[in-house]
Amino acid sequence: MRTAAFAVIAWAVATSASLATELPDVQKRAILSEFMHLLKIPNVAQDSTNIRHNADAIIAMMQSRGLAPRLVESSRSSDAPPIVYGEWKVPNAKRTIVLYAHYDGQPVNPAEWTTAPWEPTLRSAPLEAGGSTIAADSIDAKTRLYARGTGDDKAGVIVILSAIDQLRQAHRTPTDNLKIVFEGEEEAGSPHLGQLLSEQRKLFESDLWVICDGPVHPTGRKEVIYGARGDINIDLTVYGPNRALHSGHYGNWAPNPGLRLARLLAAMKNDSGRVAIPGWYDDTAPLGSLEKKAIAAATAYDEPVRRDLGLAATESDTSLAGSWTEPSLNINGMRSANVAEQAANVIPASATAVLDVRLVLGNDPRRQFEKVLAFIRSQGYFVIDREPTADERLQHPLIANVRLRPGLYAAARTPMDQPLAHAIAAAVRASTRDEIIELPTSGGSLPLSIVQAALGTGAIVVPIANYDDNQHAANENLQLGNLWEGIATYTAVLTHPAPR
Amino acid sequence: MRTAAFAVIAWAVATSASLATELPDVQKRAILSEFMHLLKIPNVAQDSTNIRHNADAIIAMMQSRGLAPRLVESSRSSDAPPIVYGEWKVPNAKRTIVLYAHYDGQPVNPAEWTTAPWEPTLRSAPLEAGGSTIAADSIDAKTRLYARGTGDDKAGVIVILSAIDQLRQAHRTPTDNLKIVFEGEEEAGSPHLGQLLSEQRKLFESDLWVICDGPVHPTGRKEVIYGARGDINIDLTVYGPNRALHSGHYGNWAPNPGLRLARLLAAMKNDSGRVAIPGWYDDTAPLGSLEKKAIAAATAYDEPVRRDLGLAATESDTSLAGSWTEPSLNINGMRSANVAEQAANVIPASATAVLDVRLVLGNDPRRQFEKVLAFIRSQGYFVIDREPTADERLQHPLIANVRLRPGLYAAARTPMDQPLAHAIAAAVRASTRDEIIELPTSGGSLPLSIVQAALGTGAIVVPIANYDDNQHAANENLQLGNLWEGIATYTAVLTHPAPR
Repeated sequence: MRTAAFAVIAWAVATSASLATELPDVQKRAILSEFMHLLKIPNVAQDSTNIRHNADAIIAMMQSRGLAPRLVESSRSSDAPPIVYGEWKVPNAKRTIVLYAHYDGQPVNPAEWTTAPWEPTLRSAPLEAGGSTIAADSIDAKTRLYARGTGDDKAGVIVILSAIDQLRQAHRTPTDNLKIVFEGEEEAGSPHLGQLLSEQRKLFESDLWVICDGPVHPTGRKEVIYGARGDINIDLTVYGPNRALHSGHYGNWAPNPGLRLARLLAAMKNDSGRVAIPGWYDDTAPLGSLEKKAIAAATAYDEPVRRDLGLAATESDTSLAGSWTEPSLNINGMRSANVAEQAANVIPASATAVLDVRLVLGNDPRRQFEKVLAFIRSQGYFVIDREPTADERLQHPLIANVRLRPGLYAAARTPMDQPLAHAIAAAVRASTRDEIIELPTSGGSLPLSIVQAALGTGAIVVPIANYDDNQHAANENLQLGNLWEGIATYTAVLTHPAPR
Repeated sequence: MRTAAFAVIAWAVATSASLATELPDVQKRAILSEFMHLLKIPNVAQDSTNIRHNADAIIAMMQSRGLAPRLVESSRSSDAPPIVYGEWKVPNAKRTIVLYAHYDGQPVNPAEWTTAPWEPTLRSAPLEAGGSTIAADSIDAKTRLYARGTGDDKAGVIVILSAIDQLRQAHRTPTDNLKIVFEGEEEAGSPHLGQLLSEQRKLFESDLWVICDGPVHPTGRKEVIYGARGDINIDLTVYGPNRALHSGHYGNWAPNPGLRLARLLAAMKNDSGRVAIPGWYDDTAPLGSLEKKAIAAATAYDEPVRRDLGLAATESDTSLAGSWTEPSLNINGMRSANVAEQAANVIPASATAVLDVRLVLGNDPRRQFEKVLAFIRSQGYFVIDREPTADERLQHPLIANVRLRPGLYAAARTPMDQPLAHAIAAAVRASTRDEIIELPTSGGSLPLSIVQAALGTGAIVVPIANYDDNQHAANENLQLGNLWEGIATYTAVLTHPAPR
């Protein structure tokens, strides 16, 4: 890790270049306006009509910048969200990087949003801090922009294109040839990405992928992350009686599926917050010494994050960055009948949970799923992947319907001493007065393993969003200061020094 | 218990009276039409506007029958659903009975209903058996009528009034003076009933209440039930981070409230399906020998019920009627974030369950609630009855928001050898060729304890609905055969023989 003194010198060197370090207000307003236009288009991957509208809008944005955009379509499914591809060929450039972001977003439950997910709204502060709506041209660094995709990950689209604008305006060229890949189904698990890349290997050929996705560190420090966890999602339903029953007439005679689900989920973790499923941690690849050092250094930042999230204690003794080097098991959601004013005195017919399993280097997605299946069977369950038949209900006291969702990511990591990655990290470092944080892997997931499998190319992540952006949840937002600083970060990435 | 041979003789005696044993079709059509009119009015107790519309409609129905109806209003709350009261004074009658039903219904989640809850719909068979919609004048005994309140408990209203019609048409008078009480907030826990009865003790004075509510036995046999369980409902919420978080960035570091809820609920019952909360069964009043005998006799009917509900096993070794003599603990509903297509990769901010606790003779509602509170505290929880403050979140790793809903019922039982109750049971027995089932208590709850506390009067339950009426759940329905047979039952109740 560098010292703070060195950081100041590096920053001074970087600012001696002809690129503006602070965007003029007029440019900020233009960027914000273009961004809000894009955020108005609903962007759930399964909504193929609106996904096309997004792709068309991005094509237009790239056209105006001379990036020769085109749609790369799946040959197998006409409904698959296309990749929006563009490029900037640089005379005499020795290398090529791919700049990646995704334009699709997580599904929404509109009832949970304060303002509609696809009506971009500016607030003077976070909603939780009582932020009120303000004019659509407020460019203050503390302003929050609310909409699905603000942080995850249309921010990546606007930041990459705006950084390119900075170079164009300064009549500069990037250090490398640029290829731009904007994906439209990352939140659905990138089911077609591997096929699209494999079918056009030449088009996507490069030396390194640079992924603009995810939040910066909770302290606000910039990050360079050399890998990502993998991810699988599991739908789990257990059953009670074949129809909901009056809880008085049948309570404690007919089994309650909510209690069954509770017992099953409770058994999956022990008292120390460790996953109790046999073999859960067995396949984990060991960390190198650089990686271990980086994780140890990041631990210092855990305490303010814990307090900010209102947590008296964390789930286990593992540090935040340390937890990213282990496979996780999380309950995304749980439902049985109704609660609050819709609750009725019933024994529900079923209870459902959605599980999220993050994977690390060494984990095979299907093998990790098999461990979950084996565990559920070990709890006495008859396991199927559909609704039970009437006969099965009478034969098996415990029935679990367990389904692996499509879209599996394995984990991937680029070594922290890879020369091109290291040179880009140096540019990020030079773009800020603060220390930056370098980590071997993020906690979140990105299709890095798909890129690696299809093209054999490594990837690093240079995120820009605020960590409290409610990513994946209701009221997703981006702090505008992160947008302005993100453009500066990517301007630095594009003009990084030559690797050693 | 009587023998089958005796039942046939008793039935033959009953049919020798001048009352019709089978309703003419034209009468059935008129009854069905009047019932459907009433079912069209939404009837959730909290919906005070529509509750008034129901009360007005019932007043009109009683006016036309010369029952001198009036509304009995709460002096404390103008929003409280009124009692619709009526009476038939019989010259020289020695006793007075109150006929009770309730016109409010359980809350609904319209999304779960196949046809809208307040658009009464006739089907040729149960939905589960593929029943299709049929004409609104189909009076076949197998026809199912779908709407909220069909079984629970507007059926009680229409059956009592139609039985009175039978007597009027035959120029007969009831054995006793009749008072009619139709309550409008039973499903909300009858929060004003005690006060209304206490304020007008003279008006409600009687020798016995006869409650028309709940389903007959799963075999279709008629029942006379001498008591009911009490009931309390508890809202329970546990917390994770102060906002929903990305499950990748924080998974297995920030605690998951769904897992916390699962662990807490799982700990509430042991492997044998018994409630593990200390002292749970301690206050249970012992059963008399008549009561024990009745429960033992009813056990013979459990097996077909289990099979019909698609259960390979029941929750514990207790018989169905035996389980009604113990306090229950049931999970009515559970929710944390979202499932299915709305699920996102998040650590939710909270997880909620609604608990239903049925009480038996000996249980005090608040004392039983205190046992739940003490148990939650014993699991390490800081227990409050509201959302936690930011400071509390940082002080207490485990926080539970536990609230007792208003509307507490204690249990109540009338001795099985009480003379007037016994005479009414004899009339029910005489109205059918089948054996009837007599039980010391129902599994469900009724405001019997409130009547007992306010007036000192006992009560019995004579139910009429089909047991598979989806009472309290979506797609509630009544089999028309139960409606026709219910009218015959109540015609017999009204003309019961003099007690010994």
